[in-house]
Amino acid sequence: MSEPLPHASTPESTLAIVCGAGSLPFALADAAVRRGRRVVLFALRGWADPQRVTAYPHHWTWMGQFGRFIRLAADEGCRDVAFIGSVSRPSLWKIRPDLRVLRLMPQIVRLYRGGDDHLQSGIGRLFEQFGFRLVGPREIAPELAMPLGPLGSRTPGEGDRADIARGLALLNATSPFDIGQAVVVAENHVLAVEGPEGTDRMLARVAELRRNGRIRSPMGTGVLIKAAKIGQDQRIDLPTIGPQTIEGAAAAGLSGVAVVAGSTIVAEPELIASAADRVKLFVTGVDAHKAVP
Amino acid sequence: MSEPLPHASTPESTLAIVCGAGSLPFALADAAVRRGRRVVLFALRGWADPQRVTAYPHHWTWMGQFGRFIRLAADEGCRDVAFIGSVSRPSLWKIRPDLRVLRLMPQIVRLYRGGDDHLQSGIGRLFEQFGFRLVGPREIAPELAMPLGPLGSRTPGEGDRADIARGLALLNATSPFDIGQAVVVAENHVLAVEGPEGTDRMLARVAELRRNGRIRSPMGTGVLIKAAKIGQDQRIDLPTIGPQTIEGAAAAGLSGVAVVAGSTIVAEPELIASAADRVKLFVTGVDAHKAVP
Repeated sequence: MSEPLPHASTPESTLAIVCGAGSLPFALADAAVRRGRRVVLFALRGWADPQRVTAYPHHWTWMGQFGRFIRLAADEGCRDVAFIGSVSRPSLWKIRPDLRVLRLMPQIVRLYRGGDDHLQSGIGRLFEQFGFRLVGPREIAPELAMPLGPLGSRTPGEGDRADIARGLALLNATSPFDIGQAVVVAENHVLAVEGPEGTDRMLARVAELRRNGRIRSPMGTGVLIKAAKIGQDQRIDLPTIGPQTIEGAAAAGLSGVAVVAGSTIVAEPELIASAADRVKLFVTGVDAHKAVP
Repeated sequence: MSEPLPHASTPESTLAIVCGAGSLPFALADAAVRRGRRVVLFALRGWADPQRVTAYPHHWTWMGQFGRFIRLAADEGCRDVAFIGSVSRPSLWKIRPDLRVLRLMPQIVRLYRGGDDHLQSGIGRLFEQFGFRLVGPREIAPELAMPLGPLGSRTPGEGDRADIARGLALLNATSPFDIGQAVVVAENHVLAVEGPEGTDRMLARVAELRRNGRIRSPMGTGVLIKAAKIGQDQRIDLPTIGPQTIEGAAAAGLSGVAVVAGSTIVAEPELIASAADRVKLFVTGVDAHKAVP
């Protein structure tokens, strides 16, 4: 199965960035370019921002056009590949498989039978079989990772710190089950565990529970806690937060957002800080293994 | 604080049944009456079925009228008290506290700061302080507990059994966090963890994920798994299933429902069996600690 690419590669080979939705792909591309590296964007139709990709060397592609990717990436002299930006878990019929993918179909179907982690590490192996090297955003641009401590002007209070500790412990317990990068805890009471619906919809659910009077804690209590899963392939799917996370947390009546520092990607920290200050929430990076500061 | 009631009590004293919504309170009352025991229903306004309570000796009461309950229960010669039927976690301002409750307020507020388990065991202690004995539905009528094995004509297949085992393991892991009596697992992938929204709304969420194409598993795969929390006070809040659980599971495109035998209450097993057969789902009682049969 292994078919190494014909070209030699160096650490400074052109970086292929497979782009999902949001502004993260462009933040990553800019960070690589700042380091003097050439980038080529592989923009996923239906997800990547059509306006913004035009500012970079790019190819449009459907998810599943693996043969096309291999050919174009080789032409561009790429060995390193980064996946970034949000892509909802694709239904099999939303993928447009090319011939190369059809031949790999039995392997891909097996990947689809596990959870996210299983799918991700499988995708990694698939690319490696064809001589590519998967690189994570943190390896390319460590400055995109969430720092320790608050982003805006607010900091968690005592009750918030207790909720954060409980949320981290819960995420730790659910991590082996390949779910839940996020939970909401208010006054020691778990209000939601994230499933495939994603963080934004989970926050909308908490907002609805509040409207229905099913949450005892007053408005302005409760914390969204996000963490990478244990063993999650940090080259493929790092948790991210953006301004819409802050807005969702505010609509859910929370007091703030805590994300594990280092393993969460924040494309535009200054935007998030100002969004948090505007809605009077804290946003803070925490150490998953230490008491919350 | 302890003020034992003036009357002597025997195991055969009149049973006070505090009634929430649904048909469970009546199933329990009938089971007690079949055993030759007198019952008095304390029907919670806003929850208990006004039509059906008229068939039994009863008093209407607001949640929070604890002083009134103590007085009436003493008049009726009750020492044993059972809580049954669904009651959504009351917002503090939906309770109509009487004088007795106001005096106990500091204690009650403390109860509200923990999770469900904390609240429940606190309610138990409160009643015991006043000389009552909390009895669980299983103690009164063991026949209301879910039996081992299928209720309808269908049984879980091999994939279902793997999903059930994974669901039980996940519920076991989240149990110390005082959440989640239910999860949905399909082809080894966790689709939802129940929060304060309850089982019916969690199933509606899974149905919506399906409509949005965010679930890879085909229609007719996936299992709702329900269990009592470890350490849950089985005298107050046992998980239950009813025909609406089966309809919700069918709407979510699942293959069946598995509940831990013994610790789940099923008021009308024959109704559930026929509902399950109609929508082609299995409903089965499983042992939480053994491989799924």
